[in-house]
Amino acid sequence: MKKSWDVKTELLVNFKIEMSRSVFSVDNKSILEFGNNTPGSRRLVLVDAEVFRHKSDLIKNYFNHHQIEAKIIPIEISEEEKNLENLLVILNSMENFSILRRSEPLICVGGGVLLDMGGFAASLYRRGIPYIKVPTTLLSIVDASVGVKTSINHFDRRNRIGSYYPPQAAYLDRDFLDTLPEKEITSALGEILKMAVVKNKGLFKLLEVDIEKQISSKFLSGTVAEEIIFTSVDDMIAELKPNLWEKNLKRLVDFGHSFSPLAEMRSLENPDVKSLPHGEAVALDVIFSSCLSHHRNLLSKKELKRIINLARRMKLPVYHKSFCDEILMWEALQDTIKHRDGAQNLPVPIEIGDSIFLNDVEFADIISSVEVYKKETK
Amino acid sequence: MKKSWDVKTELLVNFKIEMSRSVFSVDNKSILEFGNNTPGSRRLVLVDAEVFRHKSDLIKNYFNHHQIEAKIIPIEISEEEKNLENLLVILNSMENFSILRRSEPLICVGGGVLLDMGGFAASLYRRGIPYIKVPTTLLSIVDASVGVKTSINHFDRRNRIGSYYPPQAAYLDRDFLDTLPEKEITSALGEILKMAVVKNKGLFKLLEVDIEKQISSKFLSGTVAEEIIFTSVDDMIAELKPNLWEKNLKRLVDFGHSFSPLAEMRSLENPDVKSLPHGEAVALDVIFSSCLSHHRNLLSKKELKRIINLARRMKLPVYHKSFCDEILMWEALQDTIKHRDGAQNLPVPIEIGDSIFLNDVEFADIISSVEVYKKETK
Repeated sequence: MKKSWDVKTELLVNFKIEMSRSVFSVDNKSILEFGNNTPGSRRLVLVDAEVFRHKSDLIKNYFNHHQIEAKIIPIEISEEEKNLENLLVILNSMENFSILRRSEPLICVGGGVLLDMGGFAASLYRRGIPYIKVPTTLLSIVDASVGVKTSINHFDRRNRIGSYYPPQAAYLDRDFLDTLPEKEITSALGEILKMAVVKNKGLFKLLEVDIEKQISSKFLSGTVAEEIIFTSVDDMIAELKPNLWEKNLKRLVDFGHSFSPLAEMRSLENPDVKSLPHGEAVALDVIFSSCLSHHRNLLSKKELKRIINLARRMKLPVYHKSFCDEILMWEALQDTIKHRDGAQNLPVPIEIGDSIFLNDVEFADIISSVEVYKKETK
Repeated sequence: MKKSWDVKTELLVNFKIEMSRSVFSVDNKSILEFGNNTPGSRRLVLVDAEVFRHKSDLIKNYFNHHQIEAKIIPIEISEEEKNLENLLVILNSMENFSILRRSEPLICVGGGVLLDMGGFAASLYRRGIPYIKVPTTLLSIVDASVGVKTSINHFDRRNRIGSYYPPQAAYLDRDFLDTLPEKEITSALGEILKMAVVKNKGLFKLLEVDIEKQISSKFLSGTVAEEIIFTSVDDMIAELKPNLWEKNLKRLVDFGHSFSPLAEMRSLENPDVKSLPHGEAVALDVIFSSCLSHHRNLLSKKELKRIINLARRMKLPVYHKSFCDEILMWEALQDTIKHRDGAQNLPVPIEIGDSIFLNDVEFADIISSVEVYKKETK
């Protein structure tokens, strides 16, 4: 008699990422293309409360026009509120809506935190219902919109609990950026800077052209703005697509995410430390990791200065006291090592647009990196 | 400029299900075959508290012998405790253990509830760490061990929150059955009966041979016992393998799970109703669905009586007042319809070992089915 079975199968994943404009104008039916969409169909819609304040008429009118019974739930959300309690609020709204298991995709309209939490709730409810992402911040357009990672913060750690759960589609609509405070634009530049430094010199040069102009116009117009967004998304997809479930823990996109997670969490918990938005924390990590690379004679001082200079022009903070704290940086690396299953796999640039992974960083390196960091950024 | 991306990829899934014996005897290294296993390696081990009371020396000695630093966590668990609170207890134990992301698979030793919760926690922590299933009840050997579904109960509904998350391996070891109360054996027979009625007449006949003897010997010895277990698992794998993520909601294995989930939950909440173990609830649903099929002239009275008779010989309850409650049965069907995305997809036997799906059951059918049910089971 046979004694064992080898269960081998594959989960096919297929989703769409689309550069769109005016997703809530009535002639754009993109966000309704999946699921039931005949008159009388229903949708549960999570909308960032700030977005809803600016666009409530537009959004309500959209669903009314298409005769979709939409239950719109505005959610006040921030990194501090990316927690279990709010996840349960979202799950509860699904239960109350009696959302169908397959044909009423949850529509999530908001920044990274809302998309991460909405996607997480979608992955959990009845073991997964479909969902649609509509990122409304520059950061979520170039970052959260692309991947399949969902999460909440827990145990005082960022994204400690979550899942890999692809949406049906993500619609990237720059029009949402018009009401965004400048700080949100610059914060997003942290992830874009990361991508440029770690793998795309062309993007870096594009950013150097007239980043001040892009910031002041909120990336709303012009081909350079579109090209920056397109290239960032394209690079992100190229990195993520072969590795959606992170089977490979050597990830270039982890650049900027080695030291920053702990610094970011601590800044949120500690009233004495300046609170760090995600994109700013990433930018600080980009600079710190570049300092480490320079200390190891891998990255020239000229290139290091060029990176710091672009970050400054992006109005990103380049100095933060957590990154001067050797103990904190070392602890952050130890936690990151656990997240990379015991390996450092630390991406560092050897020149702008080209990187390698380090696996032999010692505490002495951190001490020296902090020295370089202080000197170059003060 | 390109305006959209089609992200197409596949998640390869590969896991092993193995009929094993004495998994905690020191010469059986099966449960250590995945992950780090050199002396000094670590494991977090969740063990059903009742199993641990009987086998603590055996289990501790196993890890000591192989010089594995095992943190063993005995968990008192029941269907009532399959909740968010206990899920957080398990997640907390992972956090405290600082479990590695890839090379320290969580080992789950217990019945279906423990395996469902352990698997769910494994799927959530850092978006997923590997885990191993060691089912210790007959029910979990033929059922929970095979699939990839994890969950907790929530919103007063069974398995309302969960994930699809394959283990690395499941080791099916009958030796755990020696300390199992008879009630646990008979409860498992509910799922085995389900499989026999819905798709395997050979299995049904095998069960009819001398089921009383298998129950009294707790399936511990003899080739018939082994063949029953093997065939049940084999049938389950055949049904689940092409549909691990339930993309297809017409599932034969849902037989016995159409009316029972709500009845089971209600019985746990309501002190006036006899509490229903999962396998017993499934058996009652098998009988009720068969009554419905008979009412619709699909299943002969002779076959219906044969099913009820075998259930009786299995010491399964055949009568329960919730299944005489037309309103409750209708409500249960409505909830099941939501779970099947708006379709009834109700599996019913047309003869023993062969089934079809119904999609046109009305309240009047439920009323008539209850009449048949009362008459045949009182």
